[in-house]
Amino acid sequence: MSTHILKLNCPDAVGLLARITGFIAASGGNLLDVSQYTDTASKWFFARLAFTGGRIEIAPETFRAEAEKLAIEMNADWTLRPANRPVRTVILVSKEGHCLADLLWRWRSRELNIEIPAVISNHDSARSLVEREGIAFEKIDFTTDKPDAFSKLSSRLRELGAEFVILARFMQILPNSICREFAGRVINIHHSFLPAFVGANPYRRAFERGVKLIGATCHYATEDLDEGPIIEQEVSRVEHYHEPEDLVRLGRDCERLALARGVRYHVEDRVLVHGNRAIVFRD
Amino acid sequence: MSTHILKLNCPDAVGLLARITGFIAASGGNLLDVSQYTDTASKWFFARLAFTGGRIEIAPETFRAEAEKLAIEMNADWTLRPANRPVRTVILVSKEGHCLADLLWRWRSRELNIEIPAVISNHDSARSLVEREGIAFEKIDFTTDKPDAFSKLSSRLRELGAEFVILARFMQILPNSICREFAGRVINIHHSFLPAFVGANPYRRAFERGVKLIGATCHYATEDLDEGPIIEQEVSRVEHYHEPEDLVRLGRDCERLALARGVRYHVEDRVLVHGNRAIVFRD
Amino acid sequence: MSTHILKLNCPDAVGLLARITGFIAASGGNLLDVSQYTDTASKWFFARLAFTGGRIEIAPETFRAEAEKLAIEMNADWTLRPANRPVRTVILVSKEGHCLADLLWRWRSRELNIEIPAVISNHDSARSLVEREGIAFEKIDFTTDKPDAFSKLSSRLRELGAEFVILARFMQILPNSICREFAGRVINIHHSFLPAFVGANPYRRAFERGVKLIGATCHYATEDLDEGPIIEQEVSRVEHYHEPEDLVRLGRDCERLALARGVRYHVEDRVLVHGNRAIVFRD
Amino acid sequence: MSTHILKLNCPDAVGLLARITGFIAASGGNLLDVSQYTDTASKWFFARLAFTGGRIEIAPETFRAEAEKLAIEMNADWTLRPANRPVRTVILVSKEGHCLADLLWRWRSRELNIEIPAVISNHDSARSLVEREGIAFEKIDFTTDKPDAFSKLSSRLRELGAEFVILARFMQILPNSICREFAGRVINIHHSFLPAFVGANPYRRAFERGVKLIGATCHYATEDLDEGPIIEQEVSRVEHYHEPEDLVRLGRDCERLALARGVRYHVEDRVLVHGNRAIVFRD
Repeated sequence: MSTHILKLNCPDAVGLLARITGFIAASGGNLLDVSQYTDTASKWFFARLAFTGGRIEIAPETFRAEAEKLAIEMNADWTLRPANRPVRTVILVSKEGHCLADLLWRWRSRELNIEIPAVISNHDSARSLVEREGIAFEKIDFTTDKPDAFSKLSSRLRELGAEFVILARFMQILPNSICREFAGRVINIHHSFLPAFVGANPYRRAFERGVKLIGATCHYATEDLDEGPIIEQEVSRVEHYHEPEDLVRLGRDCERLALARGVRYHVEDRVLVHGNRAIVFRD
Repeated sequence: MSTHILKLNCPDAVGLLARITGFIAASGGNLLDVSQYTDTASKWFFARLAFTGGRIEIAPETFRAEAEKLAIEMNADWTLRPANRPVRTVILVSKEGHCLADLLWRWRSRELNIEIPAVISNHDSARSLVEREGIAFEKIDFTTDKPDAFSKLSSRLRELGAEFVILARFMQILPNSICREFAGRVINIHHSFLPAFVGANPYRRAFERGVKLIGATCHYATEDLDEGPIIEQEVSRVEHYHEPEDLVRLGRDCERLALARGVRYHVEDRVLVHGNRAIVFRD
Repeated sequence: MSTHILKLNCPDAVGLLARITGFIAASGGNLLDVSQYTDTASKWFFARLAFTGGRIEIAPETFRAEAEKLAIEMNADWTLRPANRPVRTVILVSKEGHCLADLLWRWRSRELNIEIPAVISNHDSARSLVEREGIAFEKIDFTTDKPDAFSKLSSRLRELGAEFVILARFMQILPNSICREFAGRVINIHHSFLPAFVGANPYRRAFERGVKLIGATCHYATEDLDEGPIIEQEVSRVEHYHEPEDLVRLGRDCERLALARGVRYHVEDRVLVHGNRAIVFRD
Repeated sequence: MSTHILKLNCPDAVGLLARITGFIAASGGNLLDVSQYTDTASKWFFARLAFTGGRIEIAPETFRAEAEKLAIEMNADWTLRPANRPVRTVILVSKEGHCLADLLWRWRSRELNIEIPAVISNHDSARSLVEREGIAFEKIDFTTDKPDAFSKLSSRLRELGAEFVILARFMQILPNSICREFAGRVINIHHSFLPAFVGANPYRRAFERGVKLIGATCHYATEDLDEGPIIEQEVSRVEHYHEPEDLVRLGRDCERLALARGVRYHVEDRVLVHGNRAIVFRD
C-alpha cells in the first residue's frame, strides 16, 4: 500500500480537523502522521495528513472527487500526492558547485525524492559534475541578451515539465514573470541569515560588520529579492580571525545544509505558505 | 473561556484521531492545537489536544464522564486538565543553587505555570534564596539516618500535595519506593549528555576523556539511576583549554536551560512516556 | 602570586611577540596564557598575555614603567591589570528584569568578577530585586526632562567611579556625549541577531518576517545605534507556531547568555576593539 | 614566500614562548599566527607557529638544524612543514559512501590540502565514485583471511607512502599492529557523540535510549576501540518521531562535518596529542 499526502490550508472554523480526519477514516484510510496548525492571528488553518489504504487505493478518482468536494466546502487550497512519486526538479546553478554537488549526492543516495531532467547554468563549470551522473546539462548564455536568456529559461522549464526549481547558487535575479509563473515552486539559497545582508556580497559585509555568526537562508523566490517566505536557516559561529574567505568556506556548509533541508521539506509536502510566512511541518 | 488539555496514549487503531476530534467537535469545543504521533514499531498512539469552549465550559462533569467512556473504549491512559491551573511543585536541591535560582526566576516571571509550596534541601545553603521569595524552605538531615530522611521526605511530599517534584541538583539517590510512588512525576537534571557519563563527577570525567562537547540531560527519575526517559538535552562546545572548573561553569548554563525546558514541557502536559522513551510535543 | 593581564594592540611589525614575551621572561615572569592575532588586512597586531611572578610582584612600579617604554616604542594602546581585581560596574535597566537577574546571579556566585556600586533605572520595577542583594538602586526619571536625566546619569556614573557600564535592557538611547565619554566601556544587549532588526520591536519584526532563527547581540554602545562592535551573539531556532510572545520568551535565554558572555569577556580583558570589529580572545 | 608551520610540545618551563618566537625573529622570520597553550595540571607546553621569510627561505637546512638544536634543549617533540605541501592521504571505506563523497568534494575544491594516492575498501560499492575522480581504487577482501587482509593493507599503506589515513566509515577494527605503526596518523569517524554508544549500532541504541541529541565523533584510532583522542564532535537534535533510519540520515550530516573538520585540523598541523587528550588549535 502506498502513502498519500493531503496538504491543505483554509480559513479556520470549528471542527475542521474532525471533518478531515473523519473523511479519511470513513474512506477506510489509516492516518500515519498528522500535522496541524492554526494561526490564531490570521484565523487560518493548515494541515498535512499522511495516510494509507481504503478508497484512495481502490478507487482513487472517487476519493479525489470527494476530497475536492470537501475542500470546496472548506474554501481550501489543497494538494493530494502519492508520497513515493519523485518531484520533477530542475536545478539552476552558476559557478559555485558546492550546493549542486550536495544535492546530486542526496539525490543519488535517495535521500531526496526528486528526479532531475536537467541542470541549467549560465556557465560551463558544472558540466562534468552533472553529466557524469547521467543528467542533462544545459547552458544558457546570459551575457549578451538577458531578457532573451530568461525567456529561453522559462521555455525550457516548461518543456522539461519542471514541478520544482532550485536556485543552487544561481547568481542571476529572476524576472518577475518567472517568479509569478512558478510561484511557490522556486526555492533559493541565500548566503546570509536573512534579513541580515540582503543582496550581494553577504560574506564580505558580514566580515566588515564583525558578526560572530554567519548563516544561510533557504526561501521561496518571489518578486522581492531575498524577501520571500523563509523555509530554513542555518548558522555557524565565526571568530575575529576568520577572513572573508574563511566565512565563504564555513558558509558553504551552512548553505548546503539549509538548502538540502528546505528541498526535503518542500518535496515531502511539508511547507505551506501563507502571506510571507512559511508553515513548515519539519520531520 | 479557558483552555483544556487532553493528553492520551493507547494502542493504535484506525480512526482514533477522527474519533477524538469528532468527540470534541460534537461537544462544541474548538481545537486550538493538536499534536499526534503514532509509534509504528510498537503500534502505540499518542495525542495532545488543546481546546476551548462547548460542553467542558457548560457541563464539565458531563464532558469528563463522556471522555472517560471514550478513553475506556480506546483502552487509553489519559489526563484532562485546565491549562491555566498551576502545577503544585516541590523542588529538591542540595548545595548548588544555579538551577534553583533559575527556576525561581522563571516561576516569579510567570514563565513556568507552577506553584511552589516548599523547597526541600539536605543543606542550608539555599535557605535565604528561597525564603526571600516568600517560599517555605525545609531542611531534612540526610547525614545521620538516610532511610529515615527519605521516609520524612516522602511524607512531606504527600503532605504538601506535590503533583510534581523537581530534582534541581539534589545529590541524593532516591530510593525505589519514592521513584515508584511518584513515577512519572519526578524529573532530574543530570550534568552530562546521557548516556555518556552516567553517575558521579561527569565534568571531571568529560575533561579526562577530552570530549569537545559537554551537556546536560533532563529526565524522569526511575529506579535505574540516570536511565529514565529523557525529556530534553542541551550541549555546549568546549575546547582543550577548558579546565574541569570551566566545564562546571559552562555546564551550569546547559543544566539551567535543559531543566527549565523539561519542566515547562511537563507542566504544559507535553510529555507522554511509553516504555523508556519520552514523546515530547515541544513548543 | 597574583596573575596580571597585559592587553595591547599596535601596528604590526616583525618580532613584536618575541619582544613582548622576551620582556616578560626577562622580568622573571611566567606566561600562563598567550593569545595573539594579526589582522593582515589592516596590518594590526593584537595580544593578550596572562603572566605571574617576577618584577611585577617585587617592583610593580618599575615593571609598569618598563612596559610603558616598550609600548611607546611599539606605538601601542595597552592596559595592565591584576586579574583578580573586580571591575567596578554600573548596570542600567528599564522594566525587563531577566538580564539583570541573570547578571546578579552570576555576580553573587562569583562567576563574574565585578563589583556593583549601583543599579540605575528609569523605572521602579527592579528595585526589590536589586536591594535584596544589598546593592544600591537609583531611579532617574526620564519622562519629564530627558537631557537633564542623561546629565544626571553621566554625573552618577562618574561619581560612582564606573569603569564599566552594562545596558541590561535599558530602553533609552544614550546621547552621543555619554557614548564618547565612556567609549569602549559601555556594552548593550540587543534583542536580535544584528545587523538584522536594528532598532525597535525586533521580535515583532522577526515574527512578521517569518525567520526560523531569533537571536541576541552583545555589542559596545557607540554613537550609531546598534552599530557598535559586536562581542557575542546567540541564536535559537523558532518554528511557525511560535507567536511573538513565544519569541520574547525564547529570546530572553539568548539575551541572558549573550550578555553574560560578553560581560565576562570584557571584564577579563579579552576584548580588543579596532575600528568597528571586536577581537575576542574567548575562553 | 611560503608559510611554514612549526608545531611542538614539551615540558613547561619559564620563557619557552619567548625563546621560540625569539629564535624565529632572529632568523628574520615573520610570525603570522601563534597559538600556545600550557596544560597547568600536567605542566606541558604546546605551541603552533605559522611564519614566513628569513632563513627558512634562504637556508632551510641551516634553519632546520638550528630548530632541532632548540627542540633538543627544550626536550620537545616537534614538526616543521611547509603549509602548502599537500598531505599524502589514503582513505579507507566500506559500503557507506557519504563521508568519502564529502572528502572527495572538499579535496577537489581544494578545501582540504591533501593528495590521495588511493582509496582502499573491503567492498566494490565506492569504486566508480572514486575512479571517476581519477583516483586509484583498491579492493582488499576481508572475508576469507582477515589477518592476511590487514597485512596486505599495511603493506599498501607503506608502499603508497601514506602520511595520513582516514577511516571514512571503514567497518573493520584495525589490529594493534597498524594502530601502533601509524599512531597519531589514523583518524576515524564514529557515529555517536562519544563516549556514548561506544561500539556497534550507535544509532539503533540511541533510538532505544530515546536521546534527544545524536552525534558523531572524529578521533585518532588507537588500540582501544573508540577510546582515542577526540579531535572534533558534532551533534544534531532529534525528536521522538525520528525512527532509527531518520537518525542514520540526520547522523550522516554530523559525520561529514565532524570528519571534514577533523581532517582539516590534522592536515593543517593544528592538532597536538598528549596522553589521551587532543589539543586542537581550531581555525
